[in-house]
Amino acid sequence: MAGDGAGGPSGYGAAVHEFDADTAVEAAGEGRFRATITDRWHIGLAPNGGYLLAVVAAALGEALPHPDPLTITAHYLRPAEAGPAEVTVEPVRTGRSLSTATAALVQGGRERLRVLATCGDLDAGPARVPVTRVRGGPPDLPPPERCERRDPPEGGFAPPILERFDTRLHPPPGWVAGRRDGEADLTGWIRFADGRDADARSLVLFADAFPPAVFEVTEAGWVPTVELTVHVRARPAPGWLRARFSTRFLVDGWLEEDGELWDEAGRLVAQSRQLALVLPVPGG
Amino acid sequence: MAGDGAGGPSGYGAAVHEFDADTAVEAAGEGRFRATITDRWHIGLAPNGGYLLAVVAAALGEALPHPDPLTITAHYLRPAEAGPAEVTVEPVRTGRSLSTATAALVQGGRERLRVLATCGDLDAGPARVPVTRVRGGPPDLPPPERCERRDPPEGGFAPPILERFDTRLHPPPGWVAGRRDGEADLTGWIRFADGRDADARSLVLFADAFPPAVFEVTEAGWVPTVELTVHVRARPAPGWLRARFSTRFLVDGWLEEDGELWDEAGRLVAQSRQLALVLPVPGG
Repeated sequence: MAGDGAGGPSGYGAAVHEFDADTAVEAAGEGRFRATITDRWHIGLAPNGGYLLAVVAAALGEALPHPDPLTITAHYLRPAEAGPAEVTVEPVRTGRSLSTATAALVQGGRERLRVLATCGDLDAGPARVPVTRVRGGPPDLPPPERCERRDPPEGGFAPPILERFDTRLHPPPGWVAGRRDGEADLTGWIRFADGRDADARSLVLFADAFPPAVFEVTEAGWVPTVELTVHVRARPAPGWLRARFSTRFLVDGWLEEDGELWDEAGRLVAQSRQLALVLPVPGG
Repeated sequence: MAGDGAGGPSGYGAAVHEFDADTAVEAAGEGRFRATITDRWHIGLAPNGGYLLAVVAAALGEALPHPDPLTITAHYLRPAEAGPAEVTVEPVRTGRSLSTATAALVQGGRERLRVLATCGDLDAGPARVPVTRVRGGPPDLPPPERCERRDPPEGGFAPPILERFDTRLHPPPGWVAGRRDGEADLTGWIRFADGRDADARSLVLFADAFPPAVFEVTEAGWVPTVELTVHVRARPAPGWLRARFSTRFLVDGWLEEDGELWDEAGRLVAQSRQLALVLPVPGG
């Protein structure tokens, strides 16, 4: 179902999916792309960082000969906003199997994030030494239909981004019930609410789509991402993703958050790490 | 002792340390720096990626108002070589507490690595919500004097970089004795062989200075880094560093390696993750 494009007038699956509509880019000259940032992926007053990165990844996919962001890093400079944006892509090196580029997302003359990415083709087959050795597996979860769908209010209001996903956190985090006595670990199921399957590009958004794991140990108004790196390790099978996010080192308000995304076939499809900052509850 | 600079004619600590000599940069115009890549940090036929990144970090430290690379990502485009290099720095955003820039290291007109970094000041004090919650600690190791110093031959020869560090792996990895039957975990002590203390900038090199953890599970000629990200979390205390490196997901020859560096005060000073590739043993 991914990337159906515009279809017939009535079928559910035939409509343009939210993710595709809201990350579409249009070529506007050498290395330049026009995009429209919507408010449907907002957390609080600003768009989610993973959403912005997915828009940039769409431009990279257009500009480079290799389709998949194997490793992509974003540095967030200032909040973005709903409205038009320009994405510029500067290729750094184009090789046979990998392409590297920088990209920037600019609104109103102000750059919102800078990206550095190396893209490849996940269907290209194994590397020259195709050895596999995997430790660990997806989180152990009851089937999604037995996990409660829960759109946790954050600070009393539900940000629009919650409606874009079907998220089944398990076990339910304590902070939803007002307890912050656990560890900063979150596991659960996630998929797009409108039924679109995950693909390589959308994994950069899924890597930033759970609530912050650090909510379990401290009250925070906002946990802005300074830097997010995602390694896309495989093209996901259709269906649900299983996710695991953890923060181990919250020091003086600075924290990392590590993420893993697994597909229904039990394969690790992405790893992520971000550096972020706990900011106060407004008025708190 | 860090950054002593040139001192008296005789004292051990008064000499310019190898790291400082070999990562020195000289301003050469707006955003341009000259450097000399030495062969003292070679692994095989090419300089270590962490060393190259430390040279770039030196240029960032000169070009930006904030001294410390809080989060720095390098994408390695092609091997570098001993000889002159130019580092160019393009500031992206300079804020009150953080600066973001891209940088490139170029030799003979060919770019060797592209870097994206956000710098700050580790002495600036805690963030606005100075909460601390740490899980895990440094690896449990016997004192360094009770761990054997071992410069493991890699493929039968000892690369020059081994002489730059005093590395005490504990437990000793099985592959040193020809066994590859363990897990891809390495722990041990490390410091510069010439007594220079670690500082924030040199942590980007220490994050890439252990042998690959994946040697424990597969024979590899070379494990080139595609991308390396280092979060510098604190300024290290003088003395030894304790390090932990692990690979959990080696799939079709692609792998991540996660690292932690801890100082003698027991504080996490850096976290790292790289995406790398297993390449064949030459002639193997």
